[in-house]
Parts: sequence; C-alpha cells; structure tokens
Amino acid sequence: MTVELICVGTELLLGSIVNTNGAYLAEKCAGLGLSCYYQTVVGDNEERLGQVLRTAMERSDIVILSGGLGPTEDDLTKETAAKVCGKTLRMHEPSRKAIEKFFADRGMEPADNNWKQAMLPEGAVVMDNHNGTAPGVIIETEKNRVILLPGPPNELRPMFEESAAPYLETLTNQVICSKTVKISGVSESRAETMVKDLIDAQVNPTIATYAKTGEVHIRVTANGEDKKAAMKLIKPVVKELKSRFGSHIYSTEEDCTLEKAVADLLSANDLTVTCAESCTGGLLSARLVNVPGISEVYKMGAVTYSNKAKRRLLGVKKSTLLKYGAVSAETAEEMAKGAASAFKADVAVSVTGIAGPDGGTDEKPVGLVYTACCVKGKITVKEHRFLGNRDKVRESAVSAALSLMRGCILEYYSKVTFGKEE
Amino acid sequence: MTVELICVGTELLLGSIVNTNGAYLAEKCAGLGLSCYYQTVVGDNEERLGQVLRTAMERSDIVILSGGLGPTEDDLTKETAAKVCGKTLRMHEPSRKAIEKFFADRGMEPADNNWKQAMLPEGAVVMDNHNGTAPGVIIETEKNRVILLPGPPNELRPMFEESAAPYLETLTNQVICSKTVKISGVSESRAETMVKDLIDAQVNPTIATYAKTGEVHIRVTANGEDKKAAMKLIKPVVKELKSRFGSHIYSTEEDCTLEKAVADLLSANDLTVTCAESCTGGLLSARLVNVPGISEVYKMGAVTYSNKAKRRLLGVKKSTLLKYGAVSAETAEEMAKGAASAFKADVAVSVTGIAGPDGGTDEKPVGLVYTACCVKGKITVKEHRFLGNRDKVRESAVSAALSLMRGCILEYYSKVTFGKEE
Repeated sequence: MTVELICVGTELLLGSIVNTNGAYLAEKCAGLGLSCYYQTVVGDNEERLGQVLRTAMERSDIVILSGGLGPTEDDLTKETAAKVCGKTLRMHEPSRKAIEKFFADRGMEPADNNWKQAMLPEGAVVMDNHNGTAPGVIIETEKNRVILLPGPPNELRPMFEESAAPYLETLTNQVICSKTVKISGVSESRAETMVKDLIDAQVNPTIATYAKTGEVHIRVTANGEDKKAAMKLIKPVVKELKSRFGSHIYSTEEDCTLEKAVADLLSANDLTVTCAESCTGGLLSARLVNVPGISEVYKMGAVTYSNKAKRRLLGVKKSTLLKYGAVSAETAEEMAKGAASAFKADVAVSVTGIAGPDGGTDEKPVGLVYTACCVKGKITVKEHRFLGNRDKVRESAVSAALSLMRGCILEYYSKVTFGKEE
Repeated sequence: MTVELICVGTELLLGSIVNTNGAYLAEKCAGLGLSCYYQTVVGDNEERLGQVLRTAMERSDIVILSGGLGPTEDDLTKETAAKVCGKTLRMHEPSRKAIEKFFADRGMEPADNNWKQAMLPEGAVVMDNHNGTAPGVIIETEKNRVILLPGPPNELRPMFEESAAPYLETLTNQVICSKTVKISGVSESRAETMVKDLIDAQVNPTIATYAKTGEVHIRVTANGEDKKAAMKLIKPVVKELKSRFGSHIYSTEEDCTLEKAVADLLSANDLTVTCAESCTGGLLSARLVNVPGISEVYKMGAVTYSNKAKRRLLGVKKSTLLKYGAVSAETAEEMAKGAASAFKADVAVSVTGIAGPDGGTDEKPVGLVYTACCVKGKITVKEHRFLGNRDKVRESAVSAALSLMRGCILEYYSKVTFGKEE
C-alpha cells in the first residue's frame, strides 16, 4: 500500500520551522511497511490544499495530513478535506465534551472558536488528543483513507502511536513488524559492506541501513499473518546481525540511545563517570546528562579548554603539553587519568581535538581528535580523523567518546575484546 | 514571482533525515521576496521526479531542486530536469577540470562515474561548487528558471549564497533587501504585541517575526530600484525597532548568533568567562565554545550535577543546599560566585533547575530554572518557568543564561539598566 504526506502550514513555507513531522511520519510509515513516494508542504489555503489533496488521493492509497486543525479561521485542513471527500461537518458530542474538560482541568474557559474543533466529518473515525484540543480524524472513502493529525509534534506523535498506527496496521491483511539493530564504533561504509549480501538477498524481511552521526542503525522489517509470524521471520536476521557485529551492537530497543546504553552499562556495573572535555566544550557531558536518572552515575565533569585549565583542573603535566601539544594521545591520556582522580570517578573519558575552522596544521589537521577512557585505572586512547565543519567534528567526537566508553567498560569486565573495528 | 522547492532523496522519503534544506531554502527565498506556495519531496525516480517537476513548472515561475547530483546511477536529477526542459547534456570543460583539480588537491583519483558530474545541460548557467564535485546548474526556459543544487547542506548553502541568490536578485526588476533584528530576553508574544501596529501597517518594507528558542528575530524586507533604495526603506523601520527593543537587540548581522554576541561583548571588555551548570549538563559551555576563537575568553567550566559537586568544585555551602535546595535562587547565586572564584574568571554564569521528566514537585515543578550571573563580584539572579520536555527546558535555560550574561555585562558597564523585561 502507498502513503503520501501533506504537511500544512505557513511557517513551513516560510522556512521558520523545520519539517520534523514529515521525517517522523515518513520513518513511522516505512516501519509499517507502507511505501511513501511523495511528501508535500502547502499553506493554509483552501484552493491549493484542496488541489494537493486531490492529486495525492489519485496516486496514493493513504494520505496523511498534519497541521491546520487549530481553532482559528486560518485553520482549514479539516474543512478542506471534508469537502474534497464529500463529507459534511457535524458537531461530535464526545469531542465537544473533551474540549470542555480540557479547559475545565486547567481552570480556563474555552473561547468561542474552540467549539469549531469538535465539528467533525460525518462517519469519520475520531482519534482522541490527550495533549491538546484538536481531535484527529480518519475519513474513509471508497478508494482512500485520509488521516488528519494536529501539527504540534507533542500532539501528533502520541496520537500517531496510539491511534493512527494501530488503524494502519488493520488496513493490510498482513501485520508489519520491525526491529532496529543499533551499532556504534563501525563506519557506515564498513557496516554496509558487512550486510551487503543480506540486503541483496532481501525479500521478507527487508533490511535497510540508516547512518547517524557515529552510529549505524539497521532496520529489519517483516510482514506476516500476525505479529508472531512476522517476528519469527525477523529473529534469525537479527541473530545473524548479532553474530556479525557482536558487541558493537549497543541495543535493539526502539527508544534506546547510545548515551542511554552507556548510562545503563555504568549503572549495571555500579560505576560513576566523569568527562573532561576540550574541543567538545561540554557536549559530551550534556549528552550523558540528557538521560533521565543519570544522577546516580554522573556527579560532575569539566570543560578544560585552555592548557592552564588542563593543568589546574586535571593535573596534565606542563611537559606533556609542551612536548606533544594539547591535541595529542598523551594529553588525552593524562586528561582522562587526571579527571578520574580529581573527580573521584570509576570511569573518566576525555576529548581533545581540533574542531576548526582555524587551528589546523599539516601535521595536525582540522578534524584530528583524541579520545581517552580510563576504567578503574586501565587506560585506552584512540585517534580519530573526522570530516565536516566545526559542529560536525564536535558531534562525531562526542559519539566516538561514548562508543569508546562503552567498549572499554565491556572489555574491562572481560565481556569482549574491543577496539578491533573502526 | 513564485518559487517552488523540490527536495530529491530516498532518505527524505524514508524519514532517515530531516529536510533541513527545505527550511533553509524556504527562509532564503522568503528573504528574497519570492512567494513559495509548495514544497515537494520525491525520490530518485525519473518518472515521478519528472511529473513533479512538470507540475511545479506549470504553477511556479522558479523551481529549485536539491539533491540527486551525485556521481552514482541513482542520481538522476540533472538528467531528468534536462529532459523535462528539452535540453541535451554536454561535457562542460571547466567543470571537468574542476573535478580533476578537486581530486588532485586531495591526492586522489576520480572514479569513472565522477565525470558524469561534468555533463551539464546545454546553455545552462553553471554554479561552482567549492565544497564538493557536483556543480550547480540553472536551466532557463521560456517560462521558467530551474535551479539545481547539490543535496549536502555544506555544499548547497555556500552555493546558494554565492551564486543562486545573486542570480535570483537579477530576475526581479526590483532588488530585495532584508535586515534581521535579533532579540533576546523578550518573549515571543510580548515581541509580537510590541510590533503589531508595524505589522498591521506593513506594505513595503514587510515585517515578519520568527520565534527561536529564547529569541525572537524580526525580519524587515524591502524592495526597491536598487540596493540603496531598498536599504533606505529598511533603515527607519530598523531604527524604530531599536527604539522599541533597545538593548534587547543583540545584533542585526546575518551570521551573528546570541553566543557570538556574548563572546564579542566579553572580548571587547577584555573579560574572561566561566560556566557552572547543573540541569543543562554542559550545553551552555558547549554553545559558547561553538564560537570560533572563544579560547581568548573561555578557559574552563564545570558541570556540577550532584550536590557534592556543587560543594566541592564551587564551594556552595551545605547549609544553603539543605535550607533552600539545589534548585533555588540561593544555590544559583553561590554557584556563580563560587565558579568565578574557583576558575578565576571575570564573569561567571550558573544554571540550576528541574529539566524533568521526573523530580518536579508542586512547589518546584518541572521547568523551574534559576540562572545567576556574576560580573566582577556583582551578582544577578533570575527565576524562570519553562514549558516543554527535558530537551526544550534545557535549551531554553541555555538561551536564558546567555541572555542574562549579556544583560549583566551591559549593565555593569552602565550602558543600560537591564532586567526589566521578560
């Protein structure tokens, strides 16, 4: 089955916001096994929106629209979709009550135009909105399913998960399941080479690789009569991927990030952690601290941007800085060891490098980064050469540091021998 | 004149990347005074891309395509656009030489398929690519201008600035100029109220507000016979905005960010700076360190996530933490004072708050954040209540800290009295 996305909003046409709903819905639809060939952005204009919707309904089975369900006169997605689908808008009593309750819960009175949000196309499937006042709507016609979702991501995402995705699953006779294998410490091109034979031979399940900064995700998607049948097809492929990528796989869970995997590993081994950062300037600590509940393992860290800071806060030797420079394996090592001791942490990781745009030399070009990790006194240092601008180099360095930390902890506990791949 | 965007790429259809090119090009086109009513995403498929391009050429004057200019067989944007426009591809000698040089400079040999990138539509305007091997192309037909740009943002953006934007300016008889007034420390709704009369009365120049996290940008766009005439129309509006927003305006320069404005202010006053962060976990330091050349003013900073860290690294008193809690004006104040003294900096800024999702109470809900700034001993503390998820609260806190820092430095040097607005 084919699906097409239409994101409605003037802010998108003006470029004042980035279309994250488009990427979110596209990824979810791909995961449901739906083929998406077109995405369109159009403004809150009845004529143009109507035309775009008619074109989409001609060439795709399912059309998902986001945005334009608000209470103001500008919001006309529902009105336009109803007209194109030949449906009349009627007051939907449960939605009216839900709006009443939404405001009452907040000690507020709904404005006159809020009731407009409870006017829904006759015969439509209604999707509750637990995070706002605009209900979602599914209009069924002879040929199409037209799904209307609210624009704010914090309303759209839960509604898609709770209501639209289960509905879409019922449309196919088959159930679609997928599993994502998340890998760090292996380059994209190397990962692709390692699974090329699987991709070339794929029918059901299908295999797709997604490159993220410092990570590669491999999604295995299968369809079957029911969930059990689909998962049965996925299982041997995931097993094969596990045997090929081994401990480079940090998770197969949908909501697990690399930093969460590291935090879980620290927690499980009852280890505290600290970071000593130069070129990443706090980004590494910030990524770790983004994991809820991190306070059990992360107590403190330092940004040591100047040589003096590296000496004063971390005890890096003046002679090391003079002989090897601030961007060197030796400095990275002393930074990690110094941080472990100064901040009394079981695990310390350091980053020092040249993020650019200036500061590069022939010998030490922009993109040269050293990461070091010290686990209870055992030190590992790695050299990296990253491409891209200042931002990209810094993000790559953070991912590399997290990946190194994970590898070093696993190795320390003799679970694997790490560091052979890059 | 109307413009339409077509972003080409399977990764976009699969949702594995977010369409930042779309937002970038849309914002730039709006700035050039072009009206954009449609944006489309389509895959590397000749039939579908051709159809989308034909539709776009029927309804819009200018069509900008991004992506699909690479060397592989999958890349067929140029081939398809040439066919739709009725042009033949010919080897373009300067582009062939540029590709030769690109690889020679990197000590590499071009692959066979790289030469494909020098095959360009006859009579096309060629745009040099200083950051990659795919030249950009402008095809002129009787009715349309079709502009092809490479997909990677680090190639697309400089090419647009250097070549496409000046070309687009020549298309209108009028020259379009714009100036963006960048404001921090004023909420979006308050900023909108403050300029509502100007927006209601706008004809030429036009005025548009853009909300960023913790910032509001107001873009003033005018058209005139030439640049001088357009700028003459813009000038009094910018002057009016300056009188209304005063020192809340941190810049009117295109490439100046809030962190750069703060870094410049520190530099100009010969001040060093440090950060002591709790809930933001290093993000504030990371934003400052993202300014090239920051090493003159930023030497070190600390992430003090635990109470113990706040005491040990910053000297926050145990009694303060016990009496007022880690998230309090008193703790924020001691963190900033302590950081200034421990890290010997002229300016110290601290952040402590509850980013969520857990940890909130009735008295101290998720989103409660305190920022403090100490300029040569003079301390200012601010309380904030931010909405949104963990990420959003942390980003808002970072922007608020930068804004506070800017205000406190200006006030210290008696340039303004700050802190009246929020």
